[in-house]
Amino acid sequence: MTMCTDDCYPSRLSHTLAPFKRLDPIVYGSQSTGPLTSTELAQYERDGFLVIKDFLDEQQVQDFQQDLQHYQQHPQQLPNELVIKEAQQANIRSIFDIHKHNPRFDELTREPRLLAMVEQLLGSEVYIHQSRINVKPAFYGKGFDWHSDFETWHTEDGMPRMRALSCSIALTPNTQVNGSLMLIPGSHHYFVPCVGPTPTNNYRSSLQKQQVGVPSEQALNNLANQGGISMPTGPSGSLILFECNTLHASNANLSPWPRSNLFFVYNSVHNRLTTPFCGQAPRPEHLANRQHSGALVSSDIAAYA
Amino acid sequence: MTMCTDDCYPSRLSHTLAPFKRLDPIVYGSQSTGPLTSTELAQYERDGFLVIKDFLDEQQVQDFQQDLQHYQQHPQQLPNELVIKEAQQANIRSIFDIHKHNPRFDELTREPRLLAMVEQLLGSEVYIHQSRINVKPAFYGKGFDWHSDFETWHTEDGMPRMRALSCSIALTPNTQVNGSLMLIPGSHHYFVPCVGPTPTNNYRSSLQKQQVGVPSEQALNNLANQGGISMPTGPSGSLILFECNTLHASNANLSPWPRSNLFFVYNSVHNRLTTPFCGQAPRPEHLANRQHSGALVSSDIAAYA
Repeated sequence: MTMCTDDCYPSRLSHTLAPFKRLDPIVYGSQSTGPLTSTELAQYERDGFLVIKDFLDEQQVQDFQQDLQHYQQHPQQLPNELVIKEAQQANIRSIFDIHKHNPRFDELTREPRLLAMVEQLLGSEVYIHQSRINVKPAFYGKGFDWHSDFETWHTEDGMPRMRALSCSIALTPNTQVNGSLMLIPGSHHYFVPCVGPTPTNNYRSSLQKQQVGVPSEQALNNLANQGGISMPTGPSGSLILFECNTLHASNANLSPWPRSNLFFVYNSVHNRLTTPFCGQAPRPEHLANRQHSGALVSSDIAAYA
Repeated sequence: MTMCTDDCYPSRLSHTLAPFKRLDPIVYGSQSTGPLTSTELAQYERDGFLVIKDFLDEQQVQDFQQDLQHYQQHPQQLPNELVIKEAQQANIRSIFDIHKHNPRFDELTREPRLLAMVEQLLGSEVYIHQSRINVKPAFYGKGFDWHSDFETWHTEDGMPRMRALSCSIALTPNTQVNGSLMLIPGSHHYFVPCVGPTPTNNYRSSLQKQQVGVPSEQALNNLANQGGISMPTGPSGSLILFECNTLHASNANLSPWPRSNLFFVYNSVHNRLTTPFCGQAPRPEHLANRQHSGALVSSDIAAYA
């Protein structure tokens, strides 16, 4: 791993800085250390994401959907700051820290096969950096512009290196018309420094619409012209594992069917958060876990060793 | 054809009125009167649209793209009112009445195969009700919410009956990530009366974002649950013929590639515009052709008779 004296991935700058090759590995483990095949590992290495179909069965999807409906009807049962609404709407857009409030979700974060895949990719024990349920209401659900999650986690949360990944588990089908996740394959190979200082308490608006940490159009153009844009579609229950630095976006949900997914972020225990690199105070605990960053109790993934 | 004493398709009302079955035919001709096969006619009848691949060849697409680029660089060469910009942006969103200003486009409106297909579907000679080039700029190109074109043409332009159709010809590929046309198959079988009076000069804002003439969520739900949502994708040069009352929408273009298409509307010469049904003055000529509604000079479509 390349050593840096201070900030390996400078961003939120006053001047433009060209994208540069990442300094960190993408796949930290190997075929022998987990359930993913060498083909799957190579795909994740090349594209920055991997789709696992039928990760949840229909019953499991239904159970999580019922939990979500319950929270939509009784949001007051959750701490206020965990519930993010759509801009100018009463609809729930995200519920954060859901694994600390819902046993079913908590259990899923330690599901043996999932945890084994994640630990294989990150090459160590892991912990939950952030968890949430995302909802895109029918007709009104807004999209999200292109960004790298790592850029935010690094500058605003002090995540030092690229050794984290996100899991998106579909509770509704991902179709071409309901605002599914779009990714730029191969974009995770480059870090795109962004221009513009981070405002105080940026997270209060950035979770609805991101204003800083936005890659330049030129960088997006170059990366999308190299790698294209992928939008994995498929039935509910599918899992998308995507690398923390893969550029992604999503469109609005214009369909009459709400879209929802479970989302959680694993970080390596060797990549614990430090002081944010943007000079601001750390974001709240429910956006970036600092207190409980010990390894999750994993199943016998030693079976793959 | 069902006769009405006054307004067959009431809309922009002060009260809700349930959707009702259309009073007009969908396909006015038959297999023997044009190039479309009985399968294609049946598909158009059922779905409200039809995709014809490779309608333009690569050279033709390039020629039209060059014309568009020329107008983007020299918009002052066109009358000001024909050029619609993106809301809060300098980018061109549409150029109207383009067939009156560009010979290549004018010629395309009379292209023998196209005209024969249109005359077959509408069962008569036809004229151009409206023509335009549409552009969705990279990153910024906004979408358009669900609507029936006929609802606007009827209420604001005084188009009496459903005997018109739109042609959308792709100058760039239609992909799942660049804001392609979405349609609700089968929705053209029903007229959805809309609530809310039409403001004076509504067209000045409705071409950027439609505020009236918007179907209810319940109607959209019912129709989309019956027919689903289609988004035809494919290479540039493809043609989509869609019936004037088919509900359609499109998402934003988040891709780094601009999206553009040629768009023109044919109306039957037996369906000429009358006084607008919304009680407002007619929209300008470049949005709804009243002066020159004589039949286009067609090729020997008699060959199909």
